Amino acid sequence: MSELFHVGISGARGRMGRAVDQALDARDDVVVAVRFDWGETPDLSLCDVVIDFSTAEASVALAKTCAERGGPALVIGSTGLSPEQDAALMAAAEKIAIVRSGNFSLGVNILIGLVEHAAQRLEAREWDIEIIEAHHRLKVDAPSGTALMLGEAAAAGRGADLADVRTSPYDGITGQREAGKIGFATIRAGGIIGDHTVMFGSKDEILTLSHSAIDRSLFAKGAVAAAAWVRTRRPGLYDMQDVLGFRQA
Amino acid sequence: MSELFHVGISGARGRMGRAVDQALDARDDVVVAVRFDWGETPDLSLCDVVIDFSTAEASVALAKTCAERGGPALVIGSTGLSPEQDAALMAAAEKIAIVRSGNFSLGVNILIGLVEHAAQRLEAREWDIEIIEAHHRLKVDAPSGTALMLGEAAAAGRGADLADVRTSPYDGITGQREAGKIGFATIRAGGIIGDHTVMFGSKDEILTLSHSAIDRSLFAKGAVAAAAWVRTRRPGLYDMQDVLGFRQA
Amino acid sequence: MSELFHVGISGARGRMGRAVDQALDARDDVVVAVRFDWGETPDLSLCDVVIDFSTAEASVALAKTCAERGGPALVIGSTGLSPEQDAALMAAAEKIAIVRSGNFSLGVNILIGLVEHAAQRLEAREWDIEIIEAHHRLKVDAPSGTALMLGEAAAAGRGADLADVRTSPYDGITGQREAGKIGFATIRAGGIIGDHTVMFGSKDEILTLSHSAIDRSLFAKGAVAAAAWVRTRRPGLYDMQDVLGFRQA
Amino acid sequence: MSELFHVGISGARGRMGRAVDQALDARDDVVVAVRFDWGETPDLSLCDVVIDFSTAEASVALAKTCAERGGPALVIGSTGLSPEQDAALMAAAEKIAIVRSGNFSLGVNILIGLVEHAAQRLEAREWDIEIIEAHHRLKVDAPSGTALMLGEAAAAGRGADLADVRTSPYDGITGQREAGKIGFATIRAGGIIGDHTVMFGSKDEILTLSHSAIDRSLFAKGAVAAAAWVRTRRPGLYDMQDVLGFRQA
Repeated sequence: MSELFHVGISGARGRMGRAVDQALDARDDVVVAVRFDWGETPDLSLCDVVIDFSTAEASVALAKTCAERGGPALVIGSTGLSPEQDAALMAAAEKIAIVRSGNFSLGVNILIGLVEHAAQRLEAREWDIEIIEAHHRLKVDAPSGTALMLGEAAAAGRGADLADVRTSPYDGITGQREAGKIGFATIRAGGIIGDHTVMFGSKDEILTLSHSAIDRSLFAKGAVAAAAWVRTRRPGLYDMQDVLGFRQA
Repeated sequence: MSELFHVGISGARGRMGRAVDQALDARDDVVVAVRFDWGETPDLSLCDVVIDFSTAEASVALAKTCAERGGPALVIGSTGLSPEQDAALMAAAEKIAIVRSGNFSLGVNILIGLVEHAAQRLEAREWDIEIIEAHHRLKVDAPSGTALMLGEAAAAGRGADLADVRTSPYDGITGQREAGKIGFATIRAGGIIGDHTVMFGSKDEILTLSHSAIDRSLFAKGAVAAAAWVRTRRPGLYDMQDVLGFRQA
Repeated sequence: MSELFHVGISGARGRMGRAVDQALDARDDVVVAVRFDWGETPDLSLCDVVIDFSTAEASVALAKTCAERGGPALVIGSTGLSPEQDAALMAAAEKIAIVRSGNFSLGVNILIGLVEHAAQRLEAREWDIEIIEAHHRLKVDAPSGTALMLGEAAAAGRGADLADVRTSPYDGITGQREAGKIGFATIRAGGIIGDHTVMFGSKDEILTLSHSAIDRSLFAKGAVAAAAWVRTRRPGLYDMQDVLGFRQA
Repeated sequence: MSELFHVGISGARGRMGRAVDQALDARDDVVVAVRFDWGETPDLSLCDVVIDFSTAEASVALAKTCAERGGPALVIGSTGLSPEQDAALMAAAEKIAIVRSGNFSLGVNILIGLVEHAAQRLEAREWDIEIIEAHHRLKVDAPSGTALMLGEAAAAGRGADLADVRTSPYDGITGQREAGKIGFATIRAGGIIGDHTVMFGSKDEILTLSHSAIDRSLFAKGAVAAAAWVRTRRPGLYDMQDVLGFRQA
């Protein structure tokens, strides 16, 4: 019989915060110890782990506080951190265990591995890589964080850095496509929860690896799985590849 | 038994010109009377109709010459004409019959009609329209002429002008998608012959209308069908909707 | 200001019944007058219209009762009726207004029209029609009722009867595909809400018309829209093409 | 500078035989030494390797002859061998090197590896696997050999045998989908060269891995690459995973 663990929810009134609340509710091995939002001062001593979908600023402040206290562990889903905020998170991870990811779904994290693997084997000279993502009309940035993660995996498979090979959306007179580049195309329509496709195209064939979210609760469930995993880890900065056991220790 | 007709090929050494040559070769009711390229002076008196995949400039010059002579009829597949060149073509069409199209395939021209029909019935306030096109790595412009034709059909279905509702590719911080806009996304990879998708997305459902070319000869065959049709028409500017009988006289 | 109308829910404890309940809850022009299931005897005098997602047997019994009483109107979403049950429904529709459909979504009903239109124009000799549907793992029959409705629309566009041109799933040594036939392929996986694709394929090109449900509430909302429409109609058997105004009076 | 090698073509007048001929023509390190069909007696001493797309019967006879002579090496693309014919091929492979595959494209062989990898990580209890393939109207069997190879890879990833988990096409009253099964759906339309999709579907998300052939020459080129690889190998039965270096020695 597994022991109960105590979870705090940061960004509790946001869309993801409420979804996390529901996902926790569906498990019988978890107690929600505290819910809070930016500006509130939670009693962190009640938590084994805090799941945080707030903002870059709030996440970094929370990580600093937890690092100073020596806990609890963190699961961070906020995106759009600056390089300085990234560095602050890394510093906090010397004191506490942090899982950080742009996408907590099992399928996307499998896809990341498959994309890196395929990119290793399909020569850049002959195979063009394009990443296509589709989301609902309320999404305010493009490409999605997940699309960029997939782009980084594709670039890594080729021993390249995404920043060096990423191209702008094709628009107007572009000239021929340059070999080795990675393109991004973005679709925004209606209520699409989140679709991602990585296309490898050669002269004679196309290999396409895709993920489609059916239910938004998917991401919350993955964050809860990360929380269950991280509460017993040593300090360090982890991602979903670690949680899912896809990376060697 | 149908009578032989005589066709000239303008832009005969280009990729489409050679494909037209092959498509003509497969029919037994046609004779290729003359093949020429920019800078050459063909004997137009030998032709009932000329099929022209050259350049905007060459096409306009050819149309003027034919108009002055009172024939032959023309099938024009060149793209990227300026407003002045458009006007010159329209003027020529007062003297001779011209079919002009950005895409000669039956499927795409059916698709154009379906898109207009669907756009009429799916309210702009609730349904977002996105157009996605994919082509080979050698294509130098984006979005494709066909994608723009589809965008025009979608806009027309809503009683709008594409120029007023077209959005730039989503990139960076875009804010929420605006209702009524039509977006375009472009993919360039390997040897893709030509794929087009028009997506209508509401909060709860997605309607997707797509066309995919399997064989490049498709477009040449359609141009030849247009040639067979146009040679007996009265002066005027026609498109494939006319050739296929999709538009009332 | 529109007047309140009173709705009964038949099959109220089923999945669709509960979804209808939620959809009614979201509207301020409706009152749920009564909820009932097979075996219960509702007070139909309280209802302007009953929305019924029950079973073939229960639907026919309900229709007979309503016809005898001279009301209320009905919206019927049950599937799998025998020819005798079909006939009974038609008899009831001489006394009361009934909307009956296998799919209440706007998108699918638009798609049905597009499919018929395309099938009219794409010659059976050259264009093969295939219908592909995907649903969740709990669905117990195949192909879906909606796939069959699409098949009927495709056949109608060709002036044929689906029963005459429908083929069994390809499996084993099938021989070459016969021109004019309509094939069905079924996918069952996970939680897919409902995807339908009608593919028209010629030697050189593919035209694909698809619908994908994002949210299950879609169908309930459509049934409620049908209820709002039908309560003021004269007796007759209607479908969603009538409700949406896609068919001439 | 690489040495010329000499290739025989078995089944030379068939569609694949002619495509192999063209693919060989495009390389400057190969000489076509002999072309033959069933019933002809080629001079095998002229060949370093024979590429064979004939029939099960002809392939087995050729393999026996080569084994007795101690060469040349073989690349076999024939499908539909009986268990006895399989055994005969294996016996021949004790004397000569044979590459045998149902699909010689790089993309499909990458896909096979990705499918096995994903199937290992996505629990059968939660993730349903469906394999969908589409081919031209002339194909006489279903599912395609490649679809079955993908099914075997998926089953292998789960430690199962495809024969034990394969289901018939869904048709009629099927009941709910059984966990752990692998389904196949087949599409036949127009001139589709060959599309394959492996779908992994859970309650909340879908992972889809697909391959699409753009140009039929793809398969011939892959067979020629296999020929270049196999001519220097020791006796044994190899497949494209070996040729491409995807399998450890």
